Amino acid sequence: MAGKKRILSGMRPTGPLHLGNLHGALSNWIDMQDKYDCFFFIADWHALTSNYEDTANIPDYINNMIIDWLSAGLSPEKSTMFVQSHIKEHAELFLLLSMITPVPWLERNPTYKDQIIQMSNKDLSTFGFLGYPVLQAADIIIYKADGVPVGVDQVPHVEITREIARRFNYLYGNVFPEPEAILTKESKILGLDRRKMSKSYDNAVYMSDSPDIISSKVSKMITDPGRKLKSDPGNPEICNVFAFHKLYSAQDLVDEIDEQCRKAEIGCVQCKKKMGVNLVKFLEPITEKRAYYESKPKLVKEIILEGGNKARKTACQTMDDVRKAIKI
Amino acid sequence: MAGKKRILSGMRPTGPLHLGNLHGALSNWIDMQDKYDCFFFIADWHALTSNYEDTANIPDYINNMIIDWLSAGLSPEKSTMFVQSHIKEHAELFLLLSMITPVPWLERNPTYKDQIIQMSNKDLSTFGFLGYPVLQAADIIIYKADGVPVGVDQVPHVEITREIARRFNYLYGNVFPEPEAILTKESKILGLDRRKMSKSYDNAVYMSDSPDIISSKVSKMITDPGRKLKSDPGNPEICNVFAFHKLYSAQDLVDEIDEQCRKAEIGCVQCKKKMGVNLVKFLEPITEKRAYYESKPKLVKEIILEGGNKARKTACQTMDDVRKAIKI
Ligand code: SF4
Ligand code: SF4
Repeated sequence: MAGKKRILSGMRPTGPLHLGNLHGALSNWIDMQDKYDCFFFIADWHALTSNYEDTANIPDYINNMIIDWLSAGLSPEKSTMFVQSHIKEHAELFLLLSMITPVPWLERNPTYKDQIIQMSNKDLSTFGFLGYPVLQAADIIIYKADGVPVGVDQVPHVEITREIARRFNYLYGNVFPEPEAILTKESKILGLDRRKMSKSYDNAVYMSDSPDIISSKVSKMITDPGRKLKSDPGNPEICNVFAFHKLYSAQDLVDEIDEQCRKAEIGCVQCKKKMGVNLVKFLEPITEKRAYYESKPKLVKEIILEGGNKARKTACQTMDDVRKAIKI
Repeated sequence: MAGKKRILSGMRPTGPLHLGNLHGALSNWIDMQDKYDCFFFIADWHALTSNYEDTANIPDYINNMIIDWLSAGLSPEKSTMFVQSHIKEHAELFLLLSMITPVPWLERNPTYKDQIIQMSNKDLSTFGFLGYPVLQAADIIIYKADGVPVGVDQVPHVEITREIARRFNYLYGNVFPEPEAILTKESKILGLDRRKMSKSYDNAVYMSDSPDIISSKVSKMITDPGRKLKSDPGNPEICNVFAFHKLYSAQDLVDEIDEQCRKAEIGCVQCKKKMGVNLVKFLEPITEKRAYYESKPKLVKEIILEGGNKARKTACQTMDDVRKAIKI
């Protein structure tokens, strides 16, 4: 891996991945596999920061997430994939960094108060939730990552990571590089109801949905709200189904639909069917890979264990440096 | 160890132990060795909560502390002695407990704001300092301790530990017993200047002081402040040297001094000398043991490693229970 810069990114195991995740973070990760020395992890400890009261599904979510990753094209030969809680060193570094991180840095974190307000149905005023950026800093710098691919809302967290790394280096000597935020393109795909695609809105198409489920979901999609009758001309530009066509159908068909819709030559039911077929076709290689990995639970376990071993080796080396520097 | 209740207690490695420590916590621990299944640990990670900026001496302090313990009579055959940072599972449990501990429980902690005010020369508004009681809870319940010998000022911390254990049990099932605070008698011995004996007041006699240093320190002790001349009668009741006599001299001599002082038949210089000789004599078996252990660094290392192995076994068992309960 000499010469390649190292990046690290993670996902919280809070449910199956949907098309928004696929076209957003995941496709970014896949693109980065050849250019970078990639560490991708399932952030199960982080899942506790907002879901500590309901952990029953986490083991399933973890297993499905790694299958989602592999099906989408992350390769264990190219990338190091692992589960956060398998690398206990994250917890040790979290503890050590907590000793040098001022509370005001955390309270100032813009997402902290936002999230507390957003999720007001959950009790988030926990010590762990406040310390989310400290754990995140530990996750990142324990691998001496050079970069962190993130969405724009996560940039302040990377900034705290840089501040914590800098403070550690100042107090104990130069151990950590300061990781850069690598801004990744966000997926523009919307949910079935035209809101942001999200598990919590129940408007998502999952990577693991069967063709039947996909057809059924697609059939319920909101189209051009101005088009009441099949005989009314429609406006593809404001139609979410058309946006899906642009992602999953060939350009010929896209152009055809564009014209036919505006001339009321095609009905929405038929248009959706065509799109659904192409979406299913698009997902076919992913679905096939999923079937393969689902039939090989031992292999999946091995991939995760081997990724964990690789990650642990790096984390342990860093912790040796850290202990030498702190003298504990 | 069946049938014996388990206790756990720790000391932060912030310097050599003095007579106040010896007659306080340490002598309590020694008394408890036969009655309880004892776990005693050197809280090096806790030392970071207030001393993160200056860690250079911690390795020495740890080594000297274990020698202080052994010299005073803690026995590796009876008690499990270990260093906190050798048991990484404390950090993992700290992380998990942090997810379920409300920040207000920590802010409410009476010693939290006190200490921030007391140590206003240090920057204590760190995340780790706020989370001190969470780490302490992890230290205690990871061994499923039944009791925690503490001074009265530490009782609120044990109360937070009980609350955290209760909350864990409520959320994930019954894993932890709620430890009881076992109030220990505090040492009444004062420092050379009659303030509380403390390293930071520079008024302490250390367990590791040589006879010469002890004589010199004793010679500078404050006596009855009302006794200006050797010919003035003194009042032993308000004399700190006399308090030391009561600890270190035979009853005969104590009675004799009591009388002679009141009649101005003995001078303070001579009185101090007698006390110093007896203090040195009292410390002789400790000093001898210290010399023994100082000449056997390998043995000391082995004791700490073996204690660590025993502790780790217990901690790992608990963490298996914890992971099963949380499902991570
Ligand atoms: S025909 Fe297709 S593009 Fe036009 S409104 Fe209906 S679903 Fe949308
Ligand atoms: S003679 Fe001894 S007891 Fe009396 S005042 Fe002097 S030091 Fe204290």
